[in-house]
Amino acid sequence: MTVNVLFAARAEKWEDYETPLNAAFEKAGIDADLRTEFPPEEVDYIVYAPNSWLQDFTPYTRCKAVLNLWAGVENVVGNETLTQPLCRMVDEAGLTQGMVEWVTGHTLRLHLGMDMHINGQDGKWRTYSPPVAQERPVTILGLGALGQACGHALAGLGFPVTGWSRTEKQVEGITCLYGDDGLKQALSTAQILILLLPHTAQTENILNADTLAMLPEGAMILNPGRGALIEDTALLAALESGHVAQATLDTFRQEPLPVMHPFWAHEKVTVTPHIAATTRPETAAAVIAENVRRGEAGEPFLHQVDRTAGY
Amino acid sequence: MTVNVLFAARAEKWEDYETPLNAAFEKAGIDADLRTEFPPEEVDYIVYAPNSWLQDFTPYTRCKAVLNLWAGVENVVGNETLTQPLCRMVDEAGLTQGMVEWVTGHTLRLHLGMDMHINGQDGKWRTYSPPVAQERPVTILGLGALGQACGHALAGLGFPVTGWSRTEKQVEGITCLYGDDGLKQALSTAQILILLLPHTAQTENILNADTLAMLPEGAMILNPGRGALIEDTALLAALESGHVAQATLDTFRQEPLPVMHPFWAHEKVTVTPHIAATTRPETAAAVIAENVRRGEAGEPFLHQVDRTAGY
Repeated sequence: MTVNVLFAARAEKWEDYETPLNAAFEKAGIDADLRTEFPPEEVDYIVYAPNSWLQDFTPYTRCKAVLNLWAGVENVVGNETLTQPLCRMVDEAGLTQGMVEWVTGHTLRLHLGMDMHINGQDGKWRTYSPPVAQERPVTILGLGALGQACGHALAGLGFPVTGWSRTEKQVEGITCLYGDDGLKQALSTAQILILLLPHTAQTENILNADTLAMLPEGAMILNPGRGALIEDTALLAALESGHVAQATLDTFRQEPLPVMHPFWAHEKVTVTPHIAATTRPETAAAVIAENVRRGEAGEPFLHQVDRTAGY
Repeated sequence: MTVNVLFAARAEKWEDYETPLNAAFEKAGIDADLRTEFPPEEVDYIVYAPNSWLQDFTPYTRCKAVLNLWAGVENVVGNETLTQPLCRMVDEAGLTQGMVEWVTGHTLRLHLGMDMHINGQDGKWRTYSPPVAQERPVTILGLGALGQACGHALAGLGFPVTGWSRTEKQVEGITCLYGDDGLKQALSTAQILILLLPHTAQTENILNADTLAMLPEGAMILNPGRGALIEDTALLAALESGHVAQATLDTFRQEPLPVMHPFWAHEKVTVTPHIAATTRPETAAAVIAENVRRGEAGEPFLHQVDRTAGY
């Protein structure tokens, strides 16, 4: 039987996804009719981008699941018209790999003080030697799939990695801490701090004046997680005072980051345009096809969101 | 009993080494009194830089060993006032680790196109997505200890790594090629080329107009090996034509690289000041502490120089 799949995302995404999704459905043995328009009552699954035209799920009475194209679901979980199972995108092959590359690359960039050389092509021979990775403790807030993958990559290069999560976890090769006391300890050693938490009511502004003060003098921050994890004004104050030496930010409360936002012009801030983990169509399509297969077979969905927890 | 350790090096080194040395002594269980000045007859060990003020070792009658901060001892072995055991610095942990960090960091920098963002803090949201590492073939010329260590680190991050050596080698996880035919093949796939060969008569100018032409269009080059591996004018021509997109160079025929050398001002060249693999205070301090421990325990010193052989 044909499964009707509605693709609800901005037009340019359709170009990226049409071919990979049809290929993935075929490979999974699913007879899917994939379209950008359907009468709502005929739709079985919705492939969904939270910034699409579709905001009212009420008419999709037959829909078995909403399959998010993004890892973040903070703009979806609050939607009360959405009563179907909602699945996050966990594109291990594309998204996780991209995140590991961005986090590892920028951790090494800050660790090695690369910018001094990239910006210092003026004939001066600046022979600063950074410590080895073994002497540069890194802390990751968030031990989900992305946090764990980044932690493994950094530990593999020699960095001592501490990971923090709200509830207790155990990850090999990473010093795991949890809860409020654990957070204080995790921040106190973080020469480089990496934010990979989801955005929830509990994690909003987790990096504020109080927690920034727990970091060691001269700490550097990477935020490829979510913009709302950081209280912007508190970070700017910590950069001004020199307590925080550098922040490289990939996610923001408003994106694109407004041209007048002080992050753009700040000499201690590097803005990257939400590129750390971009879902890659080929690998993401396979995840979506697998969830449609599971839905049709009555098996539990992958990466289904717990609407109460918010992720 | 307290061991008196004289630190004899230029003043700026004291800033780098005071804390790491004291930490290393403490970790090794040595009660050391580390200072830059002592009455000569009270000194037990000398931590030594050959360019320091100390050139006459005669008054250091109690000194058990001179522990060099440098790998090279060519400026010390001829000193006839030095009759104590002399040890070279062999900082394996720091040197190899440093090379892996520099190579991995700059490979990721070029792969991710980081400079576009570091230099583009102007409010423009540049959402370029690089391919994943799996789609970015990297070639390393040279499969010695450094080439292998870097190859393993890059393969661990997902890059397909090809390694080339003059004679046949087998390294797990790396596609190994050798000889003249192998060189052509290794260069033909190298989106990022890393030079880690020693400088010998056979390797001098190994990257010249002919071999640069074997690289794919848009290749990027890292040279943390030796300056003389590259024919500078051929590289500049390949950058001008666009055949080579970027070169990040850490080693040069003349160092420091002269201010007027065209590499400094070239927009497609990044110069780093021979920092890829340097002795690091933290790891070097551990080597020195170990030698003091051995001296106090009556064990043979590590890396003791054979004054007749000269190294």
